[in-house]
Amino acid sequence: MTIHKHFDEELNLLKEKLLSMASLAETMIYKAVKSLAERDESLFEVVNQNEKKVNYLQIEIDELCLKLLALKQPMATDLRFITSAMKINSELERIGDLAVNIIQRAEVLIKQPQLKPLIDIPRMAELTQKMVKDSLDAFIKRDVNLARSILTRDDQVDGLKDQIFRELLTFMLSDQSTIPRALELILVSRHLERIGDHATNIAEDVIYLVQGKDIRHHIEEERDN
Amino acid sequence: MTIHKHFDEELNLLKEKLLSMASLAETMIYKAVKSLAERDESLFEVVNQNEKKVNYLQIEIDELCLKLLALKQPMATDLRFITSAMKINSELERIGDLAVNIIQRAEVLIKQPQLKPLIDIPRMAELTQKMVKDSLDAFIKRDVNLARSILTRDDQVDGLKDQIFRELLTFMLSDQSTIPRALELILVSRHLERIGDHATNIAEDVIYLVQGKDIRHHIEEERDN
Repeated sequence: MTIHKHFDEELNLLKEKLLSMASLAETMIYKAVKSLAERDESLFEVVNQNEKKVNYLQIEIDELCLKLLALKQPMATDLRFITSAMKINSELERIGDLAVNIIQRAEVLIKQPQLKPLIDIPRMAELTQKMVKDSLDAFIKRDVNLARSILTRDDQVDGLKDQIFRELLTFMLSDQSTIPRALELILVSRHLERIGDHATNIAEDVIYLVQGKDIRHHIEEERDN
Repeated sequence: MTIHKHFDEELNLLKEKLLSMASLAETMIYKAVKSLAERDESLFEVVNQNEKKVNYLQIEIDELCLKLLALKQPMATDLRFITSAMKINSELERIGDLAVNIIQRAEVLIKQPQLKPLIDIPRMAELTQKMVKDSLDAFIKRDVNLARSILTRDDQVDGLKDQIFRELLTFMLSDQSTIPRALELILVSRHLERIGDHATNIAEDVIYLVQGKDIRHHIEEERDN
């Protein structure tokens, strides 16, 4: 029984580490978009520091998963949980990278006059941040309904991205001096869209984990239609 | 010994399936960009069919990896190989998705007059296609030098992306009627850049697999400088 207890403790540690990583990633999204919306370059450093932490956590989590896989003969359920944890770990690390990409765009943008007050980009950020949080909660609680709600929210994020694109296109067409800044903002919206995609990947992993094998591309086909 | 032989056979099957998937992904990149460069919509169907195959392979490979992890107690080396295979599997599936994204842009673009003959985009496609091929070869052969060469080539891909961006910006600034088409082409170049990133992720996994633990973010730090 001691072995089992030890294994469960390690699994709990794994969950905790993933939740910390998700929480760092959420903060990074928030601060990155805040730095842009409020033109506050003091936030860049916070995002960069968090990225370092995320990177260390990624390695720790990977090592922990390998240890769990190597030292015990996990049961089928635990096995899928651990391999899902490894995938989620990669997704979270990419989300951190995308937050860094956003501050790179912010660095360029806040040197120039503001094109327009930002409304939809902060909304996208808020949505994707919540998606990241909920995707991890869905994973920990094995909550398929919560996971499915993330797929729906990803459609909203894509809708906002299209709306931002159309609005900025109008700016560019009416005043060509806005083109470089509008392009930077379009890129920010694409980075946020990709964050939404990574949260969606996590949600799909959760559904796969809980419901079994060939759901992932079935979901994708549903969503493509 | 029979058990070992069986395990080795399954490992070989895993390698073969990953190579098939990589080869499908390469074809998808090639055909997607060809459909755009030659304005040939008959290729869209090929890309879409290949995506379905890639999706089925992804599920098969995941199941095979889980089976290998569950049925045997793999040694540390095999364990890392199998968990790397699972990550590479996800990367290849994303590459397939990005090829589909490219044909979505091509569908829009070939309905309109050609903005300019495409040179850099096909070059980017060629580079990334080779990166995907070599990343898998590096994985199968555990070839760290080949893997490292992919990181260098990713810088070239990023360089081309920047060049394409600047060129299209010039088009947009000199003639605003080109803006919508230029934006579509910029998106194509971003999709190709991301394909390069996925091949780079595979290469980093290979280096991690062969050389041990904390190399990944060390590489990233090297590359950021």
